[in-house]
Amino acid sequence: MSLSDTQVSLKHGAGGTAMTELIDAVFTATYGNDLATRDDSARIDIEGPVAFTTDSFVVDPIFFPGGDIGRLAVAGTVNDLLTIGAKPVALSASFIIEEGLPISDLLSIARSMALTAREANVRIVTGDTKVVPRGSADKVFITTSGIGTILLNGLSGAAAKPGDAIILTGSIGDHGAAVMLAREKLLDAESIESDTAPLVDIVLNLIRAGCKIHAMRDPTRGGIAASLNEIAKQSRVGIDLDGRALVVKPAVAAACEVLGIDPFYVANEGKMLIFVDPRDAERSLEIVKQSAYGAEAALVGWVNALHSGQVRLRTTIGTTRIVSPPTGELLPRIC
Amino acid sequence: MSLSDTQVSLKHGAGGTAMTELIDAVFTATYGNDLATRDDSARIDIEGPVAFTTDSFVVDPIFFPGGDIGRLAVAGTVNDLLTIGAKPVALSASFIIEEGLPISDLLSIARSMALTAREANVRIVTGDTKVVPRGSADKVFITTSGIGTILLNGLSGAAAKPGDAIILTGSIGDHGAAVMLAREKLLDAESIESDTAPLVDIVLNLIRAGCKIHAMRDPTRGGIAASLNEIAKQSRVGIDLDGRALVVKPAVAAACEVLGIDPFYVANEGKMLIFVDPRDAERSLEIVKQSAYGAEAALVGWVNALHSGQVRLRTTIGTTRIVSPPTGELLPRIC
Repeated sequence: MSLSDTQVSLKHGAGGTAMTELIDAVFTATYGNDLATRDDSARIDIEGPVAFTTDSFVVDPIFFPGGDIGRLAVAGTVNDLLTIGAKPVALSASFIIEEGLPISDLLSIARSMALTAREANVRIVTGDTKVVPRGSADKVFITTSGIGTILLNGLSGAAAKPGDAIILTGSIGDHGAAVMLAREKLLDAESIESDTAPLVDIVLNLIRAGCKIHAMRDPTRGGIAASLNEIAKQSRVGIDLDGRALVVKPAVAAACEVLGIDPFYVANEGKMLIFVDPRDAERSLEIVKQSAYGAEAALVGWVNALHSGQVRLRTTIGTTRIVSPPTGELLPRIC
Repeated sequence: MSLSDTQVSLKHGAGGTAMTELIDAVFTATYGNDLATRDDSARIDIEGPVAFTTDSFVVDPIFFPGGDIGRLAVAGTVNDLLTIGAKPVALSASFIIEEGLPISDLLSIARSMALTAREANVRIVTGDTKVVPRGSADKVFITTSGIGTILLNGLSGAAAKPGDAIILTGSIGDHGAAVMLAREKLLDAESIESDTAPLVDIVLNLIRAGCKIHAMRDPTRGGIAASLNEIAKQSRVGIDLDGRALVVKPAVAAACEVLGIDPFYVANEGKMLIFVDPRDAERSLEIVKQSAYGAEAALVGWVNALHSGQVRLRTTIGTTRIVSPPTGELLPRIC
């Protein structure tokens, strides 16, 4: 780290030597050799068909229990590639930085991205750095895009079938609750950790084992309520959820109570909803549970042909209610 | 357009039905069928090796003479793919929107992106929409990433060779001057137009004609001074520029005078620096001139083995001076 500055300033986004120094000291040094060519595009040797996705991350605060905006930006894009059956191969990372951001923060974020990328076995191969004057953005926004090799064809939110079992890889609401508590400085913020994680192992193990997966979605913004309603609508099927199988950690439940929100609508960043042929359900669940991030996985529901487009919950006390899609903003800047 | 709202609000970034409505009315309606699957990743049938790039756009103002942030975001990423000899195939577009942005502005930007994409013969296949509270961002930032098929191998800023001719596809400084005048409301802002344009025809025609191109770069932030110095350094060569061959439009020259900046350091968004084997120089120049955006192209310099890493300018009055790389910020939020 040869930079004498301690804060990012406008010169670091100007395309000149100050920008090159920042990129060298923060990004090239951290990501390793993958960025080394210095051309405006990276060359990737990849077999088609290719999966391609993008997400912008504007989470506030940028550091929170269990993660930070960098880990989130890598895991979020990796998980989106996985949802269509692709093995993530390469990521781009574009930063919009508010003048004044401590360079130590930027370095922490870059290191977190590099670690998460290594964990997910992807390379960060290209990027961009823009700096805007104080007050034109809030600290730092990151947009990651990703490309991957599609290993399993036909996976889509429109491909769930009546009879499919629905596996959820763990508890719900952890990420959103952790960020909200950290932002509002409510309760003991450290008591809840974000679940932000790349789910490469879980998904690739299922694909390699030949499990007949029809659809996957990582339930981020809008929580499992949003993802399940989207798939019910896209696939024109009904979904029945088993309330007894859904796990909400006590601290998350307490936080949601305080914040007046339903954990069904709270973002997760390290969970996957997996729609699988019923004959492969038990085997798939066992495979998911073998991965670190899937240890608490459960079979949480079934797809039916009856109430098309609707998600219904059988509650723990035996009643049934409709889980409607979220409409408006519950938790701004959660991811 | 079925939206009853006139402004983007936080609910439009929440992952619920309001977001789906916004995406349908603004993006799906405008981009055409390319976004239609509604999955978190797009599937692209592409042959490897693949070029991959990303850029964030934070230009202020978002509408300026000759273009807008949408046209800029498409052209910029398309041109970056071209620089390594790739035919652009697909783009992603991720929006960070400040609460309160008029939806009519967002629609104008999306239409401009769709038109520019059509002009460049690429599809916008995936995207993301985040909304942040008022004051956390300024109007709208767009990050585009792109993938393309590499048609010509070995193109790199590190591959320029002594003897290479340098073709510049037109006048310099137009984009930066147009944006600065529009922002500062100086002079008659309408007198200068940004050159923002996708340069697909120029580059693909050269490749198809078999011209021996060694390096290309679109001289954006930091202007031709930044790009030429980068290539001189990467390729360990010297560069001699012919001041008589460089075109600065009178209105741009006047604007740079008022703003106290040198047009060599001002961003272009529709120009390409092309380093080509000297035996192909004349033929390449003729090919470039046949494209609409290359009509004013000229041979502006030569690569040598003498003053490695240095760019020298032979001025119109016959003196020689060093064109140093830009250091800090000249024009914030120019792209």
